[in-house]
Amino acid sequence: MSAFSIIARDPASRARAGLLQTAHGEVRTPAFIPLASSASVRGLGPGEVEALGYDIVLGNAFHLFLRPGGELIAQLGGLHRFMGWGRAIITDSGGFQVFSMGHGTIADEIKGRRGGLRSGAILSIEEEGVRFRSYIDGAERFIGPETSMQVQAQLGSDIVLAFDECTPFNVDRDYTARSTERTHRWLERCQRWRAQHDSAGEALAAGAQPRTAGRDGSLFYGIVQGGVYEDLRVQSVGAVLASGCDGVAIGGSLGQDKEQMYEVVDWGVRELEASAADRPRHLLGIGEVDDLIRCVELGIDSFDCAMPTRLARHGVALVPDPSNRWRLELDRPRWRASNELLLEGCPCPACKGGLSRGYLHYLARGGELTGARLLTLHNLTFIAGLVGDLRSAVIDGRLGQATAALRAGAAPGG
Amino acid sequence: MSAFSIIARDPASRARAGLLQTAHGEVRTPAFIPLASSASVRGLGPGEVEALGYDIVLGNAFHLFLRPGGELIAQLGGLHRFMGWGRAIITDSGGFQVFSMGHGTIADEIKGRRGGLRSGAILSIEEEGVRFRSYIDGAERFIGPETSMQVQAQLGSDIVLAFDECTPFNVDRDYTARSTERTHRWLERCQRWRAQHDSAGEALAAGAQPRTAGRDGSLFYGIVQGGVYEDLRVQSVGAVLASGCDGVAIGGSLGQDKEQMYEVVDWGVRELEASAADRPRHLLGIGEVDDLIRCVELGIDSFDCAMPTRLARHGVALVPDPSNRWRLELDRPRWRASNELLLEGCPCPACKGGLSRGYLHYLARGGELTGARLLTLHNLTFIAGLVGDLRSAVIDGRLGQATAALRAGAAPGG
Repeated sequence: MSAFSIIARDPASRARAGLLQTAHGEVRTPAFIPLASSASVRGLGPGEVEALGYDIVLGNAFHLFLRPGGELIAQLGGLHRFMGWGRAIITDSGGFQVFSMGHGTIADEIKGRRGGLRSGAILSIEEEGVRFRSYIDGAERFIGPETSMQVQAQLGSDIVLAFDECTPFNVDRDYTARSTERTHRWLERCQRWRAQHDSAGEALAAGAQPRTAGRDGSLFYGIVQGGVYEDLRVQSVGAVLASGCDGVAIGGSLGQDKEQMYEVVDWGVRELEASAADRPRHLLGIGEVDDLIRCVELGIDSFDCAMPTRLARHGVALVPDPSNRWRLELDRPRWRASNELLLEGCPCPACKGGLSRGYLHYLARGGELTGARLLTLHNLTFIAGLVGDLRSAVIDGRLGQATAALRAGAAPGG
Repeated sequence: MSAFSIIARDPASRARAGLLQTAHGEVRTPAFIPLASSASVRGLGPGEVEALGYDIVLGNAFHLFLRPGGELIAQLGGLHRFMGWGRAIITDSGGFQVFSMGHGTIADEIKGRRGGLRSGAILSIEEEGVRFRSYIDGAERFIGPETSMQVQAQLGSDIVLAFDECTPFNVDRDYTARSTERTHRWLERCQRWRAQHDSAGEALAAGAQPRTAGRDGSLFYGIVQGGVYEDLRVQSVGAVLASGCDGVAIGGSLGQDKEQMYEVVDWGVRELEASAADRPRHLLGIGEVDDLIRCVELGIDSFDCAMPTRLARHGVALVPDPSNRWRLELDRPRWRASNELLLEGCPCPACKGGLSRGYLHYLARGGELTGARLLTLHNLTFIAGLVGDLRSAVIDGRLGQATAALRAGAAPGG
């Protein structure tokens, strides 16, 4: 039985609504996955994240490998127990993070990710894996496909991602092709490690049906790379599907602007739709409001992104304002004396509690913890409402209306 | 009718349990008052502070005067509305903070307060008030008794504190005497400002009974100074009581060690007990666990202190360990792999959620917001339990047993 079941399809697009069974409960898709890279959604307790309506969070094998280490987390009962989160966890493999140290700037720019890795440095990238300096203590460390699989197994991840190279934007076709091929070889090594450490994986290596959860109940997603080259993307989808993964993640450089990004995503989903329509599809690191709407239409089932939580820590609230990328910068002087709520009718503690933009401006300007927390709760409420709306609309057969309204500035969760 | 009613007295000490009526509800005493100096208990939402069992928080006229300004907060509906807190608020007058800029080191050392004011500087201290440089923007500002009263009125404080000089520890008797006398003159000016801006205050100036809430419903507490000199403390209590305040706060340098501090507190309460036993007594800036126990026995009704919340942000949890001042330093390597809870049976989210010391060590070492928040919740839960225990014990006539158990390391809230 497949872990993923599609419960509704939009007739006018590739959008679908589904349910993904994991060892820690069901994930309703389309799903947004908040980042808990360092074993917490920053500023929130685990009960709060669940109460916001999230079925799954993302942990990061790279950060947790460096500190406190996969072994320690295993010793303390695994990542779920460690962070007190009883629902599903997907773990990033570390590929993106380790390569960010070498060619981070473009990837950062595209995905809006930054920070934390500046003091780290890649020492060498070889077939075996990547040798680098830890950003924590400067120690020389090594990570490769097997390390990543081991760490993710130690964490007890429900959805394990393959170790890949996140090909940057500024490299040529030749580098992209060679990098993508290496990512495919690393995918095989990930599968081999899992086969050696996992009975279901063994069965798979012996020719069993794919999409069977591993002995520890984990699902395994391969990652499609191929940069901005259609033929490489098509090849990469083929390689990932041939490996018999439970699901497929789309990663890497997705282009220089949103239109190109949507095109690159579309190439991948088109191929998946043709040959493996029932497999869940995750889009790595993307999650602006307009991207979520568009990529659900393109057929993506799940998303992870730092955006809503990182913006909150920088004093930015999400509001239904397409003209300003759905953003309200609270540190602007114009909000100083505002008695307005962030968003009338929003069920988050700040809006429900009647807190004014003036107060949130004050907290943002002062860098107050309470401000970061209130905006994190608000932004995750906003995104949960948005993704919930898209899911209901697919189920009710009115996705076109829903996306039109959201694009025109309707408040989500209405 | 007095705003304060004593509902039980301990026969073996001066401890009492009471109820203080404010314009925003009842405050059960003995009460610990968490700091919301900058319009939030750092990292918590207002609903959470109330859920922990607190009836009142402390706002700070000095910090809020500098940013965002009393006028702005008044315009946004007052401090309660601004920060979404519907219960009582006491406001510090700014005396302590402004003088900390000049002779802060000793006061900081005694009270464990620091930070934030380093870039500010006192320009002049005169009879009129204090001229200083703002730590926010370097602008020259002035604060005196009238400014402080005005700001506290703009905030809509329920308990207004007189503007005083917090006499430092390292000055001689002569300086202390002159400073204390000036504090008394400032007390009169505070009363006069209130009389001019407050009908009840006017009635008071015309000879009405004291301890009647002002037109805005606020209570007014005078501050006893006098350093470590018994006769000056006695005089100061006399001056404060003569002014007809609703309550009395004990402030200033309380000595070079805990024994001297308790002695200084004892002088003040002894005088109050003799001539105004029914008036509520607040101890400014004191709140270590052993201090709370001892000073409740000495007859203090309420306390404010940065300790539980500030320690939390520095990775320190309160636990029933008298041998280490009730502190557990989570960043110590010994907690790295610990599966222990902070405190078995504790109802805080970290303990109830089964989060290990190992996890909290990890969060503390990483400076994670979630760690600061979880420890803040734990520490405020611990102190609420402790103070609640002391109150119940006074009411049930078993304070001696309760304090002996707590001093021996019993968990509070049991």
